[in-house]
Amino acid sequence: MAGTGVFAEIIDEEVYNYYADGEWKKSASGKFVSIINPTTRTPQYKVQACTQEEVNKVMDAAKAAQKLWARTPLWKRAELLHKAAAILKEHKNPIAECLVKEIAKPAKDAVTEVVRSGDLVSYTAEDGVRILGEGKLLVSDSFPGNERSKYCLSSKIPLGVVLAIPPFNYPVNLAVSKIAPALIAGNALVLKPPTQGAVAALHMIHCFHLAGFPKGLISCVTGKGSEIGDFLTMHPGVNCISFTGGDTGIVISKKAGMIPLQMELGGKDACIVLEDADLDLVAANIVKGGYSYSGQRCTAVKVVLIMESVADAVVEKVKAKMAKLTIGPPEENCDITPVVSESSANFVEGLVMDAKQKGATFCQEYRREGNLIWPLLLDQVRPDMRIAWEEPFGPVLPVIRISSVEEGIHHCNASNFGLQGCVFTRDINKAIMISDAMETGTVQINSAPARGPDHFPFQGLKDSGIGSQGITNSINMMTKIKSTVINLPSPSYTMG
Amino acid sequence: MAGTGVFAEIIDEEVYNYYADGEWKKSASGKFVSIINPTTRTPQYKVQACTQEEVNKVMDAAKAAQKLWARTPLWKRAELLHKAAAILKEHKNPIAECLVKEIAKPAKDAVTEVVRSGDLVSYTAEDGVRILGEGKLLVSDSFPGNERSKYCLSSKIPLGVVLAIPPFNYPVNLAVSKIAPALIAGNALVLKPPTQGAVAALHMIHCFHLAGFPKGLISCVTGKGSEIGDFLTMHPGVNCISFTGGDTGIVISKKAGMIPLQMELGGKDACIVLEDADLDLVAANIVKGGYSYSGQRCTAVKVVLIMESVADAVVEKVKAKMAKLTIGPPEENCDITPVVSESSANFVEGLVMDAKQKGATFCQEYRREGNLIWPLLLDQVRPDMRIAWEEPFGPVLPVIRISSVEEGIHHCNASNFGLQGCVFTRDINKAIMISDAMETGTVQINSAPARGPDHFPFQGLKDSGIGSQGITNSINMMTKIKSTVINLPSPSYTMG
Amino acid sequence: MAGTGVFAEIIDEEVYNYYADGEWKKSASGKFVSIINPTTRTPQYKVQACTQEEVNKVMDAAKAAQKLWARTPLWKRAELLHKAAAILKEHKNPIAECLVKEIAKPAKDAVTEVVRSGDLVSYTAEDGVRILGEGKLLVSDSFPGNERSKYCLSSKIPLGVVLAIPPFNYPVNLAVSKIAPALIAGNALVLKPPTQGAVAALHMIHCFHLAGFPKGLISCVTGKGSEIGDFLTMHPGVNCISFTGGDTGIVISKKAGMIPLQMELGGKDACIVLEDADLDLVAANIVKGGYSYSGQRCTAVKVVLIMESVADAVVEKVKAKMAKLTIGPPEENCDITPVVSESSANFVEGLVMDAKQKGATFCQEYRREGNLIWPLLLDQVRPDMRIAWEEPFGPVLPVIRISSVEEGIHHCNASNFGLQGCVFTRDINKAIMISDAMETGTVQINSAPARGPDHFPFQGLKDSGIGSQGITNSINMMTKIKSTVINLPSPSYTMG
Amino acid sequence: MAGTGVFAEIIDEEVYNYYADGEWKKSASGKFVSIINPTTRTPQYKVQACTQEEVNKVMDAAKAAQKLWARTPLWKRAELLHKAAAILKEHKNPIAECLVKEIAKPAKDAVTEVVRSGDLVSYTAEDGVRILGEGKLLVSDSFPGNERSKYCLSSKIPLGVVLAIPPFNYPVNLAVSKIAPALIAGNALVLKPPTQGAVAALHMIHCFHLAGFPKGLISCVTGKGSEIGDFLTMHPGVNCISFTGGDTGIVISKKAGMIPLQMELGGKDACIVLEDADLDLVAANIVKGGYSYSGQRCTAVKVVLIMESVADAVVEKVKAKMAKLTIGPPEENCDITPVVSESSANFVEGLVMDAKQKGATFCQEYRREGNLIWPLLLDQVRPDMRIAWEEPFGPVLPVIRISSVEEGIHHCNASNFGLQGCVFTRDINKAIMISDAMETGTVQINSAPARGPDHFPFQGLKDSGIGSQGITNSINMMTKIKSTVINLPSPSYTMG
Repeated sequence: MAGTGVFAEIIDEEVYNYYADGEWKKSASGKFVSIINPTTRTPQYKVQACTQEEVNKVMDAAKAAQKLWARTPLWKRAELLHKAAAILKEHKNPIAECLVKEIAKPAKDAVTEVVRSGDLVSYTAEDGVRILGEGKLLVSDSFPGNERSKYCLSSKIPLGVVLAIPPFNYPVNLAVSKIAPALIAGNALVLKPPTQGAVAALHMIHCFHLAGFPKGLISCVTGKGSEIGDFLTMHPGVNCISFTGGDTGIVISKKAGMIPLQMELGGKDACIVLEDADLDLVAANIVKGGYSYSGQRCTAVKVVLIMESVADAVVEKVKAKMAKLTIGPPEENCDITPVVSESSANFVEGLVMDAKQKGATFCQEYRREGNLIWPLLLDQVRPDMRIAWEEPFGPVLPVIRISSVEEGIHHCNASNFGLQGCVFTRDINKAIMISDAMETGTVQINSAPARGPDHFPFQGLKDSGIGSQGITNSINMMTKIKSTVINLPSPSYTMG
Repeated sequence: MAGTGVFAEIIDEEVYNYYADGEWKKSASGKFVSIINPTTRTPQYKVQACTQEEVNKVMDAAKAAQKLWARTPLWKRAELLHKAAAILKEHKNPIAECLVKEIAKPAKDAVTEVVRSGDLVSYTAEDGVRILGEGKLLVSDSFPGNERSKYCLSSKIPLGVVLAIPPFNYPVNLAVSKIAPALIAGNALVLKPPTQGAVAALHMIHCFHLAGFPKGLISCVTGKGSEIGDFLTMHPGVNCISFTGGDTGIVISKKAGMIPLQMELGGKDACIVLEDADLDLVAANIVKGGYSYSGQRCTAVKVVLIMESVADAVVEKVKAKMAKLTIGPPEENCDITPVVSESSANFVEGLVMDAKQKGATFCQEYRREGNLIWPLLLDQVRPDMRIAWEEPFGPVLPVIRISSVEEGIHHCNASNFGLQGCVFTRDINKAIMISDAMETGTVQINSAPARGPDHFPFQGLKDSGIGSQGITNSINMMTKIKSTVINLPSPSYTMG
Repeated sequence: MAGTGVFAEIIDEEVYNYYADGEWKKSASGKFVSIINPTTRTPQYKVQACTQEEVNKVMDAAKAAQKLWARTPLWKRAELLHKAAAILKEHKNPIAECLVKEIAKPAKDAVTEVVRSGDLVSYTAEDGVRILGEGKLLVSDSFPGNERSKYCLSSKIPLGVVLAIPPFNYPVNLAVSKIAPALIAGNALVLKPPTQGAVAALHMIHCFHLAGFPKGLISCVTGKGSEIGDFLTMHPGVNCISFTGGDTGIVISKKAGMIPLQMELGGKDACIVLEDADLDLVAANIVKGGYSYSGQRCTAVKVVLIMESVADAVVEKVKAKMAKLTIGPPEENCDITPVVSESSANFVEGLVMDAKQKGATFCQEYRREGNLIWPLLLDQVRPDMRIAWEEPFGPVLPVIRISSVEEGIHHCNASNFGLQGCVFTRDINKAIMISDAMETGTVQINSAPARGPDHFPFQGLKDSGIGSQGITNSINMMTKIKSTVINLPSPSYTMG
Repeated sequence: MAGTGVFAEIIDEEVYNYYADGEWKKSASGKFVSIINPTTRTPQYKVQACTQEEVNKVMDAAKAAQKLWARTPLWKRAELLHKAAAILKEHKNPIAECLVKEIAKPAKDAVTEVVRSGDLVSYTAEDGVRILGEGKLLVSDSFPGNERSKYCLSSKIPLGVVLAIPPFNYPVNLAVSKIAPALIAGNALVLKPPTQGAVAALHMIHCFHLAGFPKGLISCVTGKGSEIGDFLTMHPGVNCISFTGGDTGIVISKKAGMIPLQMELGGKDACIVLEDADLDLVAANIVKGGYSYSGQRCTAVKVVLIMESVADAVVEKVKAKMAKLTIGPPEENCDITPVVSESSANFVEGLVMDAKQKGATFCQEYRREGNLIWPLLLDQVRPDMRIAWEEPFGPVLPVIRISSVEEGIHHCNASNFGLQGCVFTRDINKAIMISDAMETGTVQINSAPARGPDHFPFQGLKDSGIGSQGITNSINMMTKIKSTVINLPSPSYTMG
């Protein structure tokens, strides 16, 4: 159970501590932040409201710890990560429990998130051993006018201190996808977890603590955004920010210093359906892609662009499948659970009402109880409706009927977002050429958008982000290049 | 014109000289080899019949020249290759003329071969500058138990002397695809051209001579296989053999020493046609793939495996297109020209007669005049006919009707060859999965097999060869790895 | 001569035009900016003072042109760049003339800059063909729990519009090192040249114009920083900024949007000299590294850290070599020429006076005439002097005597800069371990810092920049990743 | 204990069985081969003498099993290898016991060999997941004249059946260094262990059996070389041979078919000592490099080439260290143990006697008891002595005094071997330039030759082998390339 057993030491008088200097600490602020359970809409947990002073100490400790960590053999770094991964998997249940209570994630999916996170940590460790362990040897005589008298040895080295800011929807998985690459690459790591999900994150961090990482190398600070948000992202001790979330990312980008940024922000992933598509496959993917975890996924299907001639058939099939979705509390493993907060539910409702007013066809009756919104398919959506462009992050999906593929591509590309998209067609030429034409980071052919498998590159274009994630790319992003040039007194050529 | 102008110095009393030590020489043998024009079936050219002693001298010179060439800056090697490429293109006409006379290549295609060869040389030069100029830097602490005290610098270095043996059908292009990677990688090169095509090759070599490569680095020996064939391939001075041709390659493999081999031998490229294919596209590719240069291409379509339900339609379309093929001498740019030799024509005829006897349907009347064989499509071919498995290397193409895709894949995989294959279908899933299932080096989806573009990997499986070609792969194949390990007295970690 | 011959069309009534939409244009502002010749200290040239409206038009045109350019075959992009390179080299003299007049670069070095720039453009073109033409194919079954049913095809694609801002000291070379990678990668390019050097840059851009690039793809806007500086760097149409210069880069970083940044800012490159070093080699490199182009190079040696026991000897050798430096106008190819501006000369003088006051030993008398400062070596410099930490960008070099290698490394690492550094020692272990310990982007062993050869990675750490340059790295930096995932209905494994 | 516990099932009536079809079997031959303990010189173990018929069955089973294994997800293949590695480490003691009894390896080193083998298997598994899981995506428009209408997807795929033939000196480690890459790459594996070491190998194979690999995928056949040696290496079912051993490798190369060969044969690793070297470091490395495992290592120091001026000092230091070596049975962990066989001891003695007769200086008295040879340093060796060129594979090391570095390099390069070499000098320029000049696969600077760490490339030039080993290179070597080309009807460019 959360906060008990090995986790007993992370909580103190009902408030979860923050993690610094290898210890679980109470903030000097004497304040805490409450976490509201989306299902019960009552406070579930409390976490420390850290001060700026505490952030400063964390940064100093991180910098010092990093210098030593950078001198730790790669295989030892990997060994610690493997250990953390094993501990994480071992304690999947209490951590999953937090996910259920904090973000109303269906219980089964919550367990899956933790297990998948363990796999990700291990895979990252092994990737990192190889990426950090191999540099380039360049010689000077490639370039016109040069003899072979300069040997350039270039290596990938750590950036320093990485600030990781994951979002509420995958507070464990999207934290470790930043933590593991940062650590294996030789960086220190400061985690600022989302408020909803903070307690799950603290449990996860404890698994790293138990694995025995050096003091100060990993920290986790909780608190109010108004107090420590900008303070963290603009902190001179931060050498890299890896952020997943919403538009805040753009604001951070404009304030952060001259440091590498990895941002994965919003999306409005389009699903383009052609006339020759396998319509059952389409329907299954729309339902899975649109309504899993109540649509609260960056890579959820967020607008369906479907050829008129097959629209009726697909809508019918989708409706039939939607009728089988279970709605209710996450503890019961319902498909549709309450969205993360009341404001989020209100936002979704705003989009729905706008669409209603402008004449969208409701395939189901709109229904909401507290934060729980019944899954809804909106047909006949037109570009003048907000939901054609905005991201609900709730179980509400618009269908726009198109009369040509070009119209679908055009709608997709007119968005300010560019995360993923998908196209359903049997035709190999159309599949490739439409994918080439869609201006998104990834295009899935004949499947709903998806972040994984985690070793695939994952990136958002335009306002959807900067940089590319996926295990290899994240590790590379969290390194910089250093080169040593051996200058010989006269040319030398390697013989054999 | 061949043998005139800048080429005047390569011929002496009507016999083309061989090239050694940077000079055009007459063999001490006093003998020559005649080259029969496939169209006229009369002797067209004569080349020197080199002796084993002359081969020995060539090898010694190559070894000495290579040691210096390996000490030449990469950009200078590239500069010489660019120069050779320009000279080759400049003299495309006399070289093409040889191709017309020696191997009956249609005049236009002959010019194209030379121009494309120039492009290949330049592209190879630039690829090589990058491949040879970049090695790896590996550190010891990746592997369990090691500190970071060993820095391994690994480079690609030349093999030594490369023996290149191209086939008659592309005596220029398939020579430079071996010569250019060998040279840019720092090797010396000994060319043994095919008898048919030897004079074109000698002209091509003269372009390299004019570019100013060091003496002895490039040689070209002509002569009788019985005298210098095995002598060359088993020569202890040879450090690599790059061979394109027929079964001889297998024999060479079993005799050659412990040296890298690049072999591209025969093929029986299958064309699998599914029911949903674009039948006009199929027909166009069968005609182009099956009959270009009278079928004398390693990557020609050599058996059509077609679903019964569309077979009649495709056969009709193919017949209609075949009716438009022009048949006659290469000088007139005919589509179908005489095959390279009388024995080759006899072999083709043998396959045709076998098929006739066993009941194949002749879509056209069989017709032959000298070495000129009229294009022929054989329908209803069955697995008991020789032509279902053997490679005609002539304008004769068998069609096998299949009742399932699996049957087609099975026939393809039952062959002892595995060069290329192609599949025609609009379906993306079938295209990928059939390609995965076909056991050939390359599978073309919706196009006939093709060697190019030249930077794509190109390889034969099973009896079709060993190693992979394509510019990058050929350069890599013609290098070996050497490493230098710097051992430090104590661990060191790169900081920044 | 500048502004004549083929360059006549870029000047209009004594004011050089700006370049937009494939044409040379006069600004609607009716204003111009004067360029002062550092030697004569009188106005030499005038360039247009562009308006924000004109910048907007340039951005729109760039965006439109880029969409088409991204659809141009790689080899055609390369072909145009090769053409531009040839034209650039052909017109090296008039361009070099501008460099002499605008930035007082010695005439010979000015020619070298142009020629080297041509080589760089060609090399970049060929690198880009390979980098953009090769993506990755990833399969899903690497990651635990996945079958092989997803094939991920990832490509590098253009970013969009790249804004290039080179510095005054290499206004041609450091412009093309941004332009060429941007273009070969499929981007549009907007150049904002430095005021000093703007006319050389306009000439250079004309060579690209003459090569025939599409209209709007390349633009060059001149003007006042106060009017269009921030407007450009914060422009929403800009998808990437590549900047070389001073601290302005840090300011730009904090305002720019969520776009990739390539920054190469100041440096304080240390030269650490050990007791076992080859002292003649050291002296030669200090003089070349410290005084070439009057110290106005980002990679100039900017502080010498020398073991006490060999300090006297080295200082004597350096003084002897300095005595042979010629001082005077760039037209006469003097070694030391006027620094770029009066304010620059004043800044240098401020550092010198501070050092004098605090007791540094002057190895020569301090002398200045206008912008011309005689080369000066300051011995016995201590950490409390400004020149121990600040970058003079003039012919003035401080020597700090150290009593241990650790002291030298410490001084180097205490700097807020981290561009390059060098260490002189014969000892292989010390060389490698000191290089590992120095926190700079590059460490040169036994040679002065240097940006080239241009295919080597080049990067500044800390306040010296972000990202890595060098041809390959610059091309990669100017691309983003896009992936297409083919989802198969069931697992498929590639057989052969 | 060997042959007991979990290993009880691999032995039957005192004869160790061979492994085929996932079972431990008795040969139909009814014959066995005896393994002589080098220390006791009496029979220690017996293994089956397999028949050609049994080899045929093994090959058929391997081929069939491989087809299924190639369709196993990469992570599952890795999982099985990790399991095998764990089992191997768990049973290190009984396996080490075999090594002590079969090849007289000191007990401690025997344990180390097994443990290191486990690490190697795990590391290889993770490397392979990445190497096999990543292919290339190439597009056609890189090459002149092509539009972007062809997308080439190239993958690395298994070769088929790999025949592994390790040598007696590391019968476990040099077996798994072939087995693990073969398996992770999707191949089947047939092991022919050396006679001495066969029982250790059988135990090791049983660990793979216990891990649960599919039946038939792994086999281990024992027997007489005369019966099954050539039969195996020339078997048409073999698709790759990985051999480590002596000259037999060259013979195999000349008979094997057209298949990839990885050969690591003999060596005569030179140790060049310069005047400025750290002489204590030199002495320590000569003793370790020359006498570990009684010199029976391919990468042992086999000739010392030392500058005359420091020769006396080094020889004295080496002698002093040699005096501390313990000599005796492997069970007592002696440094020097009996060489593997009487014929081997006789060969060593022959070299020693030849040197004696020709005037070499004996630094110790020559002493031999049975197969046990006391460690011997031969000074003043000259090029006319056999030991200057031949490989003793015993605890006998020649010193040649040289008067110039060039003389040392010349001796090194005059050898027909080219495995490794080492150079001792403090000078960075000399270190690099001498390494460049030495024609061996690897040069160690300031350390004795060494095969590991196992992820470093490892290769022999000239008669020392073909191909490069090291984990990554071995995996790559055991794959071939297959490509799929998607041909689009019109050009397509990836937008974003």
